[in-house]
Amino acid sequence: MTNYFSSDFKLGILGGGQLGKMMLYSTRKFDICTYVMDGSDEAPCKIACNKFVKGELMDFDAVYNFGKTVDLLTFEIENVNVDALEKLEQEGVKVYPSSKTLRLIQNKATQKLFYRDHSIPTADFNRFAYLSEIDESIENGGLEFPFVWKATQFGYDGKGVKIVRNLEDLKELPKGECITEKLIPFKNELAVIVARNEAGEVKTYPVVEMEFHPEANQVEYVICPARISDAVADKARTTAMVVSEAFNHVGLLAVELFQTEDDDILVNEVAPRPHNSGHQTIEASYTSQFEQHLRAILNLPLGKTESKAAGVMVNLVGAEGHTGDVVYEHIADIMKMEGVTPHIYGKKQTRPFRKMGHVTIVNNDITEARRIAEDVKRTIRVVSR
Amino acid sequence: MTNYFSSDFKLGILGGGQLGKMMLYSTRKFDICTYVMDGSDEAPCKIACNKFVKGELMDFDAVYNFGKTVDLLTFEIENVNVDALEKLEQEGVKVYPSSKTLRLIQNKATQKLFYRDHSIPTADFNRFAYLSEIDESIENGGLEFPFVWKATQFGYDGKGVKIVRNLEDLKELPKGECITEKLIPFKNELAVIVARNEAGEVKTYPVVEMEFHPEANQVEYVICPARISDAVADKARTTAMVVSEAFNHVGLLAVELFQTEDDDILVNEVAPRPHNSGHQTIEASYTSQFEQHLRAILNLPLGKTESKAAGVMVNLVGAEGHTGDVVYEHIADIMKMEGVTPHIYGKKQTRPFRKMGHVTIVNNDITEARRIAEDVKRTIRVVSR
Repeated sequence: MTNYFSSDFKLGILGGGQLGKMMLYSTRKFDICTYVMDGSDEAPCKIACNKFVKGELMDFDAVYNFGKTVDLLTFEIENVNVDALEKLEQEGVKVYPSSKTLRLIQNKATQKLFYRDHSIPTADFNRFAYLSEIDESIENGGLEFPFVWKATQFGYDGKGVKIVRNLEDLKELPKGECITEKLIPFKNELAVIVARNEAGEVKTYPVVEMEFHPEANQVEYVICPARISDAVADKARTTAMVVSEAFNHVGLLAVELFQTEDDDILVNEVAPRPHNSGHQTIEASYTSQFEQHLRAILNLPLGKTESKAAGVMVNLVGAEGHTGDVVYEHIADIMKMEGVTPHIYGKKQTRPFRKMGHVTIVNNDITEARRIAEDVKRTIRVVSR
Repeated sequence: MTNYFSSDFKLGILGGGQLGKMMLYSTRKFDICTYVMDGSDEAPCKIACNKFVKGELMDFDAVYNFGKTVDLLTFEIENVNVDALEKLEQEGVKVYPSSKTLRLIQNKATQKLFYRDHSIPTADFNRFAYLSEIDESIENGGLEFPFVWKATQFGYDGKGVKIVRNLEDLKELPKGECITEKLIPFKNELAVIVARNEAGEVKTYPVVEMEFHPEANQVEYVICPARISDAVADKARTTAMVVSEAFNHVGLLAVELFQTEDDDILVNEVAPRPHNSGHQTIEASYTSQFEQHLRAILNLPLGKTESKAAGVMVNLVGAEGHTGDVVYEHIADIMKMEGVTPHIYGKKQTRPFRKMGHVTIVNNDITEARRIAEDVKRTIRVVSR
């Protein structure tokens, strides 16, 4: 077995953002030597890795050259140069999750086709090379309002997704490749994080429920465990495992799901990395999602995915009407509340709905945790000075 | 209130070792700007702080000059220059824990006198300016075998403490200032971590039980909660609070206690910082001792000290007969066990009984956790290549 716990071994991480930073806490615990590459000199990971390299993540040469200096390469963001990853794999560098998975996922049309090919339940969809083709399809009666529009690439945090109810809604959208999906009436948006290592050991975390902010289309609360029946939870976990197996995935895979009004489970989309829907695992689970990702990619035994207590995660986003140097108003007040831990991401500037951190609430009682989460949300304000 | 959550505020930490490193995880979570000073360029904290300064911790000028660059100063090791801390306090730099506490604690004779002056129960003791005075005291009948010898300064990890049963035992000991203590027959060695902030808010963690390695006089297991009656636990927590109040302490205070055969609680000694007896709080408690220390010194509300589950901590020390480049044999095997998390400190060289890391076992059942801890101990081996 490779001796990861020595400075001879080097783990490379593409992307130096918040997810990478939280991943680095776990590498420090295991004393794993880490190299991080990011396009920004201000990347949060910069001060927590053994070596920081400035380089553009979409640039072939930058990713390839960085990859050649490490033994195993992972990423904390999907927007990285996949061609470089593929070449590195061919030359013997381990890349987990693999370039193959990432290529399938980076483009939402390809991802949807993959589900269709593998009989994985997902909402019906159409693919369009240009936005203008949607207009034609509507005129021809091939598409009816309302529907969901998604850019096939580079969507993030609710950007790149829109519910389209009329022609007017189409006008503001980017012109490029997109898919449209049937608007599914659903009871719940759920997520399951699956961990799978090289040896094929698989574990799923408990199903979480995601409550979205009505305007910003961002997750506002993540609730673990989801308040759903055991039968629906089992179906969700099984579906997520099937997806992970289909990708022959190594590492974490966050699977976002819809629970329809008929209690069917449909796969919405996946992220091949630690995910916003798993942040509560830091405090609530036996094994945090970040430690689990490391265990999976290093082919170590996976940790226990059960929860020590119920957990609710609140995303901290910039208040409307505030742009500029950030201040966390009333943060001490939320720290008075029971089982509350703020995670501040350290971005210097706030703007409306910008993700600035998250707060975890842990409690033996899920209802109480959810109540405290609302208190937290009402109390703390992310404003500008 | 000071805005700690901005880069205008700078927290200084004296000492860049393992405790500091674990403290830094929590500062990263809160995005607090940290400066660390340590005498070694290889200090584990070096890669996790905003700024690292190389400087000797016992050197007045080094500590003073470093202190002048920060807004609040704390330490992760007691062996720092207290005169410099005192001068910094006089000049308006906040130092928590205070120089006064540290001065009282650094010398074990002074510490014992403090307990006596404050009617805090502790084992009877005598103070000697030189080791040779002990011989005289024995000759005069003022002291009888067996007794406990303790160096008054710079003891660490069981060094500086010895049970003396005969004249022969005295010969190997350092010649300087020391105390002798009555050898108390005790049932258990316990510890309580007390957190106290500037506003005077106080919380205690559950009482833990420390099992020592018979030869090395080092803690081998820390068991939380201690397997003692509620009455004894209450007495231990109350005594620890009294000690913290007596010092007018700000920050964490780890209070080591003896439970005598008559169920009396005696204070052994204290450490004004996160402590080996609190490492299991990272996984087992609602608030880790490191986060709690930060909350206390920053005068933030203290976090919940209850446990999410039972926890046992196993110290990982170098195996006998092994000196050199370290290898963690069978580490993957312990990671297979339920609720097991290794913490590797990243020291490159092992030697017999050197503290190289710790392992936490979390479980709903304390007996099961203790059983797994023994498995861990039997399985992992810290050896040289």
